[in-house]
Amino acid sequence: MRIDILTVVPELLDSPLNQSIMKRAQQAGLVEIVVHNIRDYATDKHRQVDDYPFGGEAGMVMKIEPIFILINKLKAEREYDEIIYTSPDGETLNQQAVNHLSTKRNIMILCGHYKGIDHRIREHLITREISIGDYVLTGGELAAAIITDSVVRVIPGAIGDEASALTDSFQDNLLAPPIYTRPAEFNGWKVPAVLLSGNFKEIEKWQESQSLERTELLRPDLLEK
Amino acid sequence: MRIDILTVVPELLDSPLNQSIMKRAQQAGLVEIVVHNIRDYATDKHRQVDDYPFGGEAGMVMKIEPIFILINKLKAEREYDEIIYTSPDGETLNQQAVNHLSTKRNIMILCGHYKGIDHRIREHLITREISIGDYVLTGGELAAAIITDSVVRVIPGAIGDEASALTDSFQDNLLAPPIYTRPAEFNGWKVPAVLLSGNFKEIEKWQESQSLERTELLRPDLLEK
Repeated sequence: MRIDILTVVPELLDSPLNQSIMKRAQQAGLVEIVVHNIRDYATDKHRQVDDYPFGGEAGMVMKIEPIFILINKLKAEREYDEIIYTSPDGETLNQQAVNHLSTKRNIMILCGHYKGIDHRIREHLITREISIGDYVLTGGELAAAIITDSVVRVIPGAIGDEASALTDSFQDNLLAPPIYTRPAEFNGWKVPAVLLSGNFKEIEKWQESQSLERTELLRPDLLEK
Repeated sequence: MRIDILTVVPELLDSPLNQSIMKRAQQAGLVEIVVHNIRDYATDKHRQVDDYPFGGEAGMVMKIEPIFILINKLKAEREYDEIIYTSPDGETLNQQAVNHLSTKRNIMILCGHYKGIDHRIREHLITREISIGDYVLTGGELAAAIITDSVVRVIPGAIGDEASALTDSFQDNLLAPPIYTRPAEFNGWKVPAVLLSGNFKEIEKWQESQSLERTELLRPDLLEK
């Protein structure tokens, strides 16, 4: 899989994409992540990527030209399954969408910054808009990092223990059960006795009932899906 | 405002917290962001921060002791309004919660990593659990970056143009209207004529109707709030 990220602040993405599991997945050849600086495609001598909005609203707007050039350059090089714009207006990201995106071959993610991008880019060049949640961020870079991290994580082989991703929250619309490690007692706080019993059938039953109970209590909406 | 972030992979947070608006807000003294390496508080000679789960589930669990020591050290130094754990089980972050958090004095954010933290930490030390969305990430670090970015952004003075944040999506449960910048025509794609009219009353009316229309079309659930 290849993920191209288009941004005016590439520095923001340095550490989230090059540590831990993201780093290892790239080293293992499971994913190629390429960050492009939109400013490199600016057409005027000041390398301007933003301009004042028509209509006099507050904030700056990302210009069409550099983005148009960069997207078309990439499209000429390979076929893209999706050209994603991270925006509060988009479909809300969830684990099902993440799983589905992880099966794609090439995706592009355009990060909005400042007040956003010229709407004509969204109408004519973007194939899908994704929101990571109902809150506003400084820029789309962190949203792109979230999409990339969640998607790469579920590519088979990306996390050491493959069974681990399948028991995560949301994979079956249930929250994960509580987990514990040593010591069995700390500061008077004890691990539930069943987990120390060695009876794996009982443990599994307990974990399933905890999953269901916690979901009913904390996220009953997930059960309605 | 002070935000303490507790993590086993502090490198992940280097760039998101030290660029652009986050950098300027810290330089301007609006917020102090302190990242702590949980490993520095490990109690054994191998500096171990994780261990196998009781009950034999897949994945590793973050141990109690180093987190217990670090949280208590910080609590001894100042009073915290919230000790947040980023978790899929938590309340889902939205703009109202972001605005509210931005009025706090001191908050702590504990990032889960691996399979998560020993549940006793959540029961006894955490005051609030927040989820940034219904998807699973490599770790809580990006979630902590999202919370920090969204919260710091709305502190008065953090973004250059204060009017800008108030016209963002979600602040009034409406999506923002489309925005455009020069050129007025590109590749045959035109900016809506009203925005070029200079009639600010008409422009405002258009923007309001677009906001409402787009919200009805894309996020009708926001209007029900």
